[in-house]
Amino acid sequence: MIQVIPVRISADVKPHDELDAIILGAIRQNHIEIQDGDVLVVAHKIVSKAEGRIVDLAEVRPSSKAIKMAKEHCKDPRIMELILKESTQILRAQKGIIVSETKHGLVCANAGVDQSNVHGDAAVLLPVDPDKSSSRLKDAVKKIEGKEIAVIITDTFGRPFRNGQTNVAIGVAGISPIRSYIGSRDMYGRKMRVSEIAVADEIASAAELVMGKAEGVPAAIIRGYKFEKAEKSSARSLHRSKSLDLFR
Amino acid sequence: MIQVIPVRISADVKPHDELDAIILGAIRQNHIEIQDGDVLVVAHKIVSKAEGRIVDLAEVRPSSKAIKMAKEHCKDPRIMELILKESTQILRAQKGIIVSETKHGLVCANAGVDQSNVHGDAAVLLPVDPDKSSSRLKDAVKKIEGKEIAVIITDTFGRPFRNGQTNVAIGVAGISPIRSYIGSRDMYGRKMRVSEIAVADEIASAAELVMGKAEGVPAAIIRGYKFEKAEKSSARSLHRSKSLDLFR
Repeated sequence: MIQVIPVRISADVKPHDELDAIILGAIRQNHIEIQDGDVLVVAHKIVSKAEGRIVDLAEVRPSSKAIKMAKEHCKDPRIMELILKESTQILRAQKGIIVSETKHGLVCANAGVDQSNVHGDAAVLLPVDPDKSSSRLKDAVKKIEGKEIAVIITDTFGRPFRNGQTNVAIGVAGISPIRSYIGSRDMYGRKMRVSEIAVADEIASAAELVMGKAEGVPAAIIRGYKFEKAEKSSARSLHRSKSLDLFR
Repeated sequence: MIQVIPVRISADVKPHDELDAIILGAIRQNHIEIQDGDVLVVAHKIVSKAEGRIVDLAEVRPSSKAIKMAKEHCKDPRIMELILKESTQILRAQKGIIVSETKHGLVCANAGVDQSNVHGDAAVLLPVDPDKSSSRLKDAVKKIEGKEIAVIITDTFGRPFRNGQTNVAIGVAGISPIRSYIGSRDMYGRKMRVSEIAVADEIASAAELVMGKAEGVPAAIIRGYKFEKAEKSSARSLHRSKSLDLFR
């Protein structure tokens, strides 16, 4: 059995806050004892905030390109400027939706630039290196609690073909984000059709069910899932390369 | 807290088997007591098998179009024939991968036609009406156990932009597959960026973590998730209409 345990965090995370202390404090306050083999799932928003990835919109000077695109797509030109800065390539700009590839290699709407759950006239950007942020949290749990866990940092993305957004992994530490069945055989000895499962995305989705959106639960613990440990892992292995993608 | 409970089923499901009796028997054998508010997640494979959606490949006569496409994409021409029959439109046929829209409106590889975990020279097709199959299971649990549950039937799909497959909902009963935040406000009173969460897909993904692929666990129970009940719901509300899709 797998348990999905909500971690309520009442504090509003601010730049320079020590996120590891805040999360571990909240875990204790929630009367949870962290265990070896747990997966700690954290919404990127609080990671971004702690890392100072908040932009005061009053200080953004939109380029003429940003102003033009903002007008076309009914966006705030300052937000459009941030989207362009965070992106390496715009894939679609249609119907008011901007889909781009970010500097991380993520394909998502608005390059992850987000104005919800942030104070004042500001926007939150994705963490610069979500894998490194994940590693820092993993190492802090090892150091402070003596426990070996995995960490997944998430965002909520739309996707082609299907309505509704789902949580996905944008940073990982200590876990192999993909479980491979390549070479495995089914119960009749036949090669498996399903070859690779994006378990980090599935864990992110499972965690979203307790994290909700506006309810002060920006983290969760997944307990009882026997994941494949990995010293050096990266959420980048979830990014399909452009040359292998049939929809770019 | 949410629990994800595996339901091991040792029987090999065959056409005309009573799937409700098999699943409820397995739940009892697994020492699980089904409860009001549980979500029963079932891999479509056993639903398809019980509903006789197994095709003896010796009886498939591929059309000339199927033979031509099979050659181009290194596929069995009989499988290619089934893919074409199950599809309303081919979206991509590249690099040995066929992505199509099925008669249900699902966009996936090979129209869901699958040769793994099936006996002999045969292929399994998706259930004709996965929502109806879900409803039948839901009604049987109500009738036999007196419990009000939701049911989700799943398949494992690839997706653009991201490596690895994830479990998604192809049929639902008793649950609204999308949770809407439209009109909600964040902790600062601002409109939410995330407006609709595909919770049925997230539940399907959570269940996959215990279902695995070749291990005799074709079902799971999700317990403790307060889902939005719906008398008349359909997994079709997860299908983005072509006119709103930026990637078709």
